[in-house]
Amino acid sequence: MTQGSGEKILQRADEMAQFSAMEKGLTRAYLTKEHKHAHQQLSDWMLDAGLEVWQDSVGNQWGRKVSANPTQPTIIIGSHSDTVVNAGKYDGNLGILLGLEALEQLSGVDLPFHVDLVAFADEEGVRFNTTLIGSSAVAGCFQPAWLDIKDSQNIAMGEAMLSFGLAPEQAGKDARLPEDVQAYLEVHIEQGPVLEDLNLPVGVVTGIAGAKRYQFTVKGMAGHAGTVPHTLRMDALCGVAEMVSTIEAYGLEHNVVATVGKCNVKPSAVNVIPGEVTFSLDIRSAVQGDLEVACSELHFQLEQIAQRRQLTLASEMTYQASAVPCHPQLQQQWGEVVKQQTGKEACFLPSGAGHDAMVMANITDIGMLFVRCEKGISHNPREQVNEQDVTAALNCLIDMVQLMANPDSAED
Amino acid sequence: MTQGSGEKILQRADEMAQFSAMEKGLTRAYLTKEHKHAHQQLSDWMLDAGLEVWQDSVGNQWGRKVSANPTQPTIIIGSHSDTVVNAGKYDGNLGILLGLEALEQLSGVDLPFHVDLVAFADEEGVRFNTTLIGSSAVAGCFQPAWLDIKDSQNIAMGEAMLSFGLAPEQAGKDARLPEDVQAYLEVHIEQGPVLEDLNLPVGVVTGIAGAKRYQFTVKGMAGHAGTVPHTLRMDALCGVAEMVSTIEAYGLEHNVVATVGKCNVKPSAVNVIPGEVTFSLDIRSAVQGDLEVACSELHFQLEQIAQRRQLTLASEMTYQASAVPCHPQLQQQWGEVVKQQTGKEACFLPSGAGHDAMVMANITDIGMLFVRCEKGISHNPREQVNEQDVTAALNCLIDMVQLMANPDSAED
Repeated sequence: MTQGSGEKILQRADEMAQFSAMEKGLTRAYLTKEHKHAHQQLSDWMLDAGLEVWQDSVGNQWGRKVSANPTQPTIIIGSHSDTVVNAGKYDGNLGILLGLEALEQLSGVDLPFHVDLVAFADEEGVRFNTTLIGSSAVAGCFQPAWLDIKDSQNIAMGEAMLSFGLAPEQAGKDARLPEDVQAYLEVHIEQGPVLEDLNLPVGVVTGIAGAKRYQFTVKGMAGHAGTVPHTLRMDALCGVAEMVSTIEAYGLEHNVVATVGKCNVKPSAVNVIPGEVTFSLDIRSAVQGDLEVACSELHFQLEQIAQRRQLTLASEMTYQASAVPCHPQLQQQWGEVVKQQTGKEACFLPSGAGHDAMVMANITDIGMLFVRCEKGISHNPREQVNEQDVTAALNCLIDMVQLMANPDSAED
Repeated sequence: MTQGSGEKILQRADEMAQFSAMEKGLTRAYLTKEHKHAHQQLSDWMLDAGLEVWQDSVGNQWGRKVSANPTQPTIIIGSHSDTVVNAGKYDGNLGILLGLEALEQLSGVDLPFHVDLVAFADEEGVRFNTTLIGSSAVAGCFQPAWLDIKDSQNIAMGEAMLSFGLAPEQAGKDARLPEDVQAYLEVHIEQGPVLEDLNLPVGVVTGIAGAKRYQFTVKGMAGHAGTVPHTLRMDALCGVAEMVSTIEAYGLEHNVVATVGKCNVKPSAVNVIPGEVTFSLDIRSAVQGDLEVACSELHFQLEQIAQRRQLTLASEMTYQASAVPCHPQLQQQWGEVVKQQTGKEACFLPSGAGHDAMVMANITDIGMLFVRCEKGISHNPREQVNEQDVTAALNCLIDMVQLMANPDSAED
C-alpha cells in the first residue's frame, strides 16, 4: 500500500477543478473547452499509469489496463467528469481519479481481464438538459434525436460535437457489447448523510432508487377566517397537513423516502380559510416493489383523509424511473473487501440519486461503492471528503478488482 | 304584524344596490356620488317614515323617531351603507333597512326615548384604506390625521369631504355623548354558516371577536429528496404539517377559531427537502381571555414541536384587536324576543368579523342580532338572505325596542 495515495487523489481533484467555465468555482459542461482540457489531463495521467487511451464517439475518455492473456470479459470502472453549475470537486471526478490510481497501483499485477477506466463526458445534463449522455452512448442507449437538442446559446448537440472534433453521425455507434463486459464498477461520494451518521468511510450500494413523482390537488372550500367555526370548515390546508404527516410516517416505517417539496395554498390570505392546496410528492426506493406498494398504499391513505374531511383529491404522476439493483454478487464482494479494509461489517445502503451505473446496467452487472462526504452536502462548492476515506475507498477498489480476478481466494 | 314587510325590505335592498360605481354589480365607497345618492334615498324613506333627518359631520345619514316625553337616553339603531368592491346587497344595508322599517311600524307607538337610525357612510374602508370611519366619528374616535389619507386617485379625505359638501374641520366634532345614549343595536347578516347549519333564521351575538395574527418562520435543513433518510431529516414542512394539525385540534376543542391561511415553502422544489417554511396564523375569540390563553398555549405547543424536530421557530405578531363583548342584558333581551318570535331557544354566537358596533361600544352598550345568510357567503354578489328570515329579524327588532321601553312587561 502506497503512502499518500489519498493525498495524491485529492490533489488531482483540485487540479481537475481548474478546468472550469467559472473564475472562482467549478462548472464544467459537455463539449466545452473545459471538457476538452480536463480530458486531455486525464489522458496524460492515464498514459503515465501505463494505460492505452482513446476518446469515444461522444467524447468519453477511456484508458485500458491491457491484460496479456484475457480469459474473462472486460471490467469497466468509471464515473463522470462533467459537473453541475458551481459544483463540488468530488461528485463524479473522485470516482475517475480513484479508478486511475487503482489501475496505476495494479500496473505490475497480471489480471485475467482488461480493465477499462472511463470518464463519462456528460452525466449531469447541464448543457443540453438531457442527462447521462456519456454512459448512454456506451450502453447502446444514445438517441440520434438528441443531436438536435439545442443549448441556451441555440447550438445543437450535433453542431457542438463537430466543433469539439467528433463525428456526430458516429455518436453511440461504438457502444460496448454485453458479452464483452463482465461488470461495471463505480465509486462515488454518497451525497447523503448516512455514512457520516454511522461513522463509516465507505458503504456498499444496494441499488439505485426508482422514483415516482406526483402532483396532488386538494380542494375544500375557502371561507372567512373569523365567521366559519371549525366544525363547518373544509380547510384544504388542514387536510394537506394531515397528508404530509401521513407521508412522513410512511417513509419512517417503510423502505422508501417520501418528500413533499412543494406546497402552494390558494387563495393564500391571512384571513381566508384555504380553499385549495397543491403539493408535490417525490417517493423513492431501491426496491421497485416497495416503491409500487408505497405509492398504492399512500394514495389509498390520502384518499381516505380527503373523504373524511369532505375534500376532493386529484393526483397526477409527473415522473417515474425504475429502480436498478446492484448485482447481489458484486454487493457481496464489495462487502468482503470493505470488511477487510475497515475491520467492520460493511454498511449496505441504497442510492437515492441517479448515477451512470443505472444506464450501464443495460449491458452489464453493476456494483457501486459510496464514500462518506461531509454532512451529505453535494452539488455545492462545500462538497468535502477526507483523505483517510479516499484512501480506504482506493484500497477497497484495488482489492475488489483482485477479488474479481481470483474469487476463490477471498477470505470470509 | 304587517304582511309583506320582508318583501318590502328586500325590494329596498335592490333599489339601494342601484347606487353603485359598477355597471353590473355593487360597489359603493365613501364620499362618492353613489354615497350621496344612496343617502338621499335613505333620507327620503326616513322622512316618509315620519323621522327627523340630518347628515352629520362625516356624511353619516340619521333619522330620529322623536319621543314626546323622553325619560330614558336615546337608543341608536344602525349599520353601514358603504360596500366592498363587487359586493352583496345585504352586508350593512340590510341592518339600516330593517331599522327603517321597524321605526315606520313603530310610528304610532309612544316610546320613553328617542330612537335614532344611522347609516354609517364608511365601515369597509375601501376608499381610504382605513375602516369604520362613520362609527368612529359618532363614538368620538375620529382622528384628524385621517383627513390627509389619500385615495388611489391621490385625493385626500379632507378634500373629498369638501367636494361632498362637508366641512372637514368639523369632522367628528358632533360625536355623541355616552350619557345621552342608552344602547346601540345592530342587525347584520351573519357572514358565516352557523345559523344555516342550525336551521335558525336569526341568532344573538355574544360579542365581536378579538383577533391576533402571527407570522411564523420554521427553519430546518434543506436536503436531497433521494439521499437523506427520514431519520436524518430536519424537514421544515413536516414540522409545519404537525403544527397546522395542532392548531386545528386546538380550535376544535376551545373557544377560538384558528386559521393558517398562508404557507410558503423554500426552496419549493419537487426533489428538495423543505429547509424553511413561513406560515400565518389568524386566531379569534369573542372572549379576550380565551384568545390570550390560546395564543400562549399554541406558542408553547408549536415550540415543543419545533424542538422535538430540531427545527427553529420564530414568531412575529402582525396584528391584534381586542374582543368587544355584547352587553349581557341586551343579549338576554334579544334572546327573549327571538324565542318569542321563533318559538325556539335562541342561538348565541360570536361574530368573527368586525362591525360598527365594536366602535360604538366606546360610548354605549351594544347588542347585535345576526340574520342567516345562504352558505355564509358575504362580500360577494352571491350574498343571499330569505324573506322569512328578514321578516323574523324585523319582528325581533320591533319587539326589542318595545321590550327596552318596558322591560318589566317581558314574558319569560
